[in-house]
Amino acid sequence: MHFLLSNDDGYLSEGLSVLAEALGTLGRVTVVAPDRDRSGASNSLTLTRPLRATQMPNGYIRVDGTPTDCVHLALTGLLENEPDMVIAGINHGANLGDDVLYSGTVAAAMEGRFLGLPAIAVSSTSFQPAHLEAAASAMLGIIRRLCDDPLPRDTILSVNVPDRPLTELKGFQATRLGNRHRAEGMLKTTDPRGRSIYWVGQAGPEQDAGPGTDFHAINHDYVSVTPIKVDLTRHEAVEHLQEWLLTCPI
Amino acid sequence: MHFLLSNDDGYLSEGLSVLAEALGTLGRVTVVAPDRDRSGASNSLTLTRPLRATQMPNGYIRVDGTPTDCVHLALTGLLENEPDMVIAGINHGANLGDDVLYSGTVAAAMEGRFLGLPAIAVSSTSFQPAHLEAAASAMLGIIRRLCDDPLPRDTILSVNVPDRPLTELKGFQATRLGNRHRAEGMLKTTDPRGRSIYWVGQAGPEQDAGPGTDFHAINHDYVSVTPIKVDLTRHEAVEHLQEWLLTCPI
Amino acid sequence: MHFLLSNDDGYLSEGLSVLAEALGTLGRVTVVAPDRDRSGASNSLTLTRPLRATQMPNGYIRVDGTPTDCVHLALTGLLENEPDMVIAGINHGANLGDDVLYSGTVAAAMEGRFLGLPAIAVSSTSFQPAHLEAAASAMLGIIRRLCDDPLPRDTILSVNVPDRPLTELKGFQATRLGNRHRAEGMLKTTDPRGRSIYWVGQAGPEQDAGPGTDFHAINHDYVSVTPIKVDLTRHEAVEHLQEWLLTCPI
Amino acid sequence: MHFLLSNDDGYLSEGLSVLAEALGTLGRVTVVAPDRDRSGASNSLTLTRPLRATQMPNGYIRVDGTPTDCVHLALTGLLENEPDMVIAGINHGANLGDDVLYSGTVAAAMEGRFLGLPAIAVSSTSFQPAHLEAAASAMLGIIRRLCDDPLPRDTILSVNVPDRPLTELKGFQATRLGNRHRAEGMLKTTDPRGRSIYWVGQAGPEQDAGPGTDFHAINHDYVSVTPIKVDLTRHEAVEHLQEWLLTCPI
Repeated sequence: MHFLLSNDDGYLSEGLSVLAEALGTLGRVTVVAPDRDRSGASNSLTLTRPLRATQMPNGYIRVDGTPTDCVHLALTGLLENEPDMVIAGINHGANLGDDVLYSGTVAAAMEGRFLGLPAIAVSSTSFQPAHLEAAASAMLGIIRRLCDDPLPRDTILSVNVPDRPLTELKGFQATRLGNRHRAEGMLKTTDPRGRSIYWVGQAGPEQDAGPGTDFHAINHDYVSVTPIKVDLTRHEAVEHLQEWLLTCPI
Repeated sequence: MHFLLSNDDGYLSEGLSVLAEALGTLGRVTVVAPDRDRSGASNSLTLTRPLRATQMPNGYIRVDGTPTDCVHLALTGLLENEPDMVIAGINHGANLGDDVLYSGTVAAAMEGRFLGLPAIAVSSTSFQPAHLEAAASAMLGIIRRLCDDPLPRDTILSVNVPDRPLTELKGFQATRLGNRHRAEGMLKTTDPRGRSIYWVGQAGPEQDAGPGTDFHAINHDYVSVTPIKVDLTRHEAVEHLQEWLLTCPI
Repeated sequence: MHFLLSNDDGYLSEGLSVLAEALGTLGRVTVVAPDRDRSGASNSLTLTRPLRATQMPNGYIRVDGTPTDCVHLALTGLLENEPDMVIAGINHGANLGDDVLYSGTVAAAMEGRFLGLPAIAVSSTSFQPAHLEAAASAMLGIIRRLCDDPLPRDTILSVNVPDRPLTELKGFQATRLGNRHRAEGMLKTTDPRGRSIYWVGQAGPEQDAGPGTDFHAINHDYVSVTPIKVDLTRHEAVEHLQEWLLTCPI
Repeated sequence: MHFLLSNDDGYLSEGLSVLAEALGTLGRVTVVAPDRDRSGASNSLTLTRPLRATQMPNGYIRVDGTPTDCVHLALTGLLENEPDMVIAGINHGANLGDDVLYSGTVAAAMEGRFLGLPAIAVSSTSFQPAHLEAAASAMLGIIRRLCDDPLPRDTILSVNVPDRPLTELKGFQATRLGNRHRAEGMLKTTDPRGRSIYWVGQAGPEQDAGPGTDFHAINHDYVSVTPIKVDLTRHEAVEHLQEWLLTCPI
């Protein structure tokens, strides 16, 4: 088993190194990760400039690009041997509900899937996680199960692990993405030279967080496992849309 | 009717100004767009630095951020009056199949929907479009129809218009996203100082492009209209995943 | 006469366009300027990525790089016809005393000189200048004089013009750079996510600003003209340093 | 003795860590360095966004800014105890002649001097130096000499050390900056999407490289020590300029 491991917190993240070590017990691990924090990068690809890839003393390869760039480069020519699976994480901070749309961690997994490999993203619910080993251990459980009994190839998993000791985790739960209330307003302020600047506000609080959602699982100390799709078509709407368009003259 | 208009090619794009003018015949238009080309930005949000917004002589507001940043700022405090609808485009270049995942244009529309507004993204199939007026005209048709007969609020539309004179467009087609063959390999080369650099390769050619897909509609001179979803859950997989996880010990 | 005109405020700056128009009365003007505000860029050159140059509808060429990049590209191959002189400005805001070290405007002129051409940088003392025409007019006076009676080729001039009506300017004064008190402390604050961030503080107030300095000239409504050198050697110190090093064993 | 150490190659540079260790034998060392390669940054200061400073496991502080930003932040509030001297390097690659104008290494030293401290920049002549210990050793010699017999406070030194074993270095030489032939033309090429891109060309070969210059010292296996000035006024030209301006009407 050969894992490609990436993340969006950057190659120096503790979550990355803890997971790299854990995966090492299952097979070979190649780390290709951003050279700095790229949280919020979503699926962005760098098209306007070339990228640089540098092998660090510990063997990790850092790239001056996004998580998607990292996985894309790795799978389209940078690595001599193609990996068998793409893993992204352990992210510091949850990726729940609408967060997934912006997440560089989930995007790294998507890019792996898009290029033909099974892929899993994993996040700890804390920005300063104290129990990364528990999250890594939960991941090993899922990966071992995957090896025995593969999921359909087009299923990406987004895993969120409560930041708790392993013994306090109650098990796995398959979930759907909940959603948040609207984000907080942007913050308008001024720089030291008196010019207006704007910060993107915080994500909103949970809104749709009932049973079955990822929020609910996490809040009850379960590891949340959400199947994610890469096809963004709203298939159930196509037929009605076709009718609707009939009376739309060009 | 008050439109928020954005794009990912930047505020100087001709596609943007042609659409702004066309929308002006239907209502008020506020343009908030990136200060430069941000193609490939996907849904990325700028969280590590503040943004600046500058009103240009023609009234457009340019922001030194991503398309998602532009729509987010506009709807969470920058604009005094909340718009009624978010429009993104006209993008120079198609957004078909897997492109949608990386597209900043579609992301701008998603952000509008995410913050509660109906939203449409529109792209011309050419990188140097000669018939932007035709694309703008097709958009006006869709928007007028929407005003008469609204679609469910959670439906974003991604519209692709063949770069042809209006008289050569055969009508609208509701489509699903097709997909492309795997992207071309990255390009490895060296900079003038002899160091290795890597360019992300071209998108692959069409793979799943049969009847019903956006590729097929475009190739037959129809305007392709694809309903896009923001919820990334693969709902049909949740139940099976729950069973699968039962035998996965933590 | 063919002028290469650049600046550090970006190609949309009013100071740039006012000066371009004024120079047009003396000869041909080619504008190559940064695509955004690059104040504080000093002599920085972009070596790690390629640059893009785009001709705008008004004929200006914008480059996604520093002022030094702009002049460097223009003079090493971008322009078909080599200019006769490099002009940078009109900068919005003074470049006095120690500011010069950080100034992208003065750096653009330095790069012109470095590549063999006479060069002048010009700044208005106001960040929101109301009398750019007066500054442009003063520049025309200097350039006409230069054409009649050239200065030694290795002399760059840095011109600072008080932001006043032409009739209130008392004339030109040759000056030396004064200097400022130490800059204000950096500003420590937190971003909306609670993480520490630091802003570079304001430049300090005038310290050495007596007669003969650029500060003094400006404060008395004179146009300050300072000869700037590109050779950074402290020639008068070399001999003593050689003696000093004699007792420094390797 | 408390040293502030910075560079422009980034905090992971081997030249930086070798020098940090050597300085540790003379006193306390605080490292504040850019988070990535910022070669060519000159004296640029980051004014449009805030900076972030992160303490690494080895105690180094990395900053997402330029070398000048690093020294500026460190001396205007980031460090609790003000250092006694600023050292920049060991740069991988020479800073000779005109290079100095663009060098981030020399700029870091300038910023130290500008904020009131003695300052030295040091570079190895090789981009992949094999004898960093020799360069560090030469620096210790200079610093010890400085402690015994200080130079005038406004003298910055730029030191260039041939990349050779210590026993093959012939001693120190006080030098003036030589200069290079005009830089090579820019390189025009296209990106994978067919759009024109431009790379800044290589620095030109030596031109003024005779006895007394830094080039000459290096070429003869001496450590070159050049006194650098921060005052950019061309003092000897002020008087003539004043006369010249007399006949320049405003």
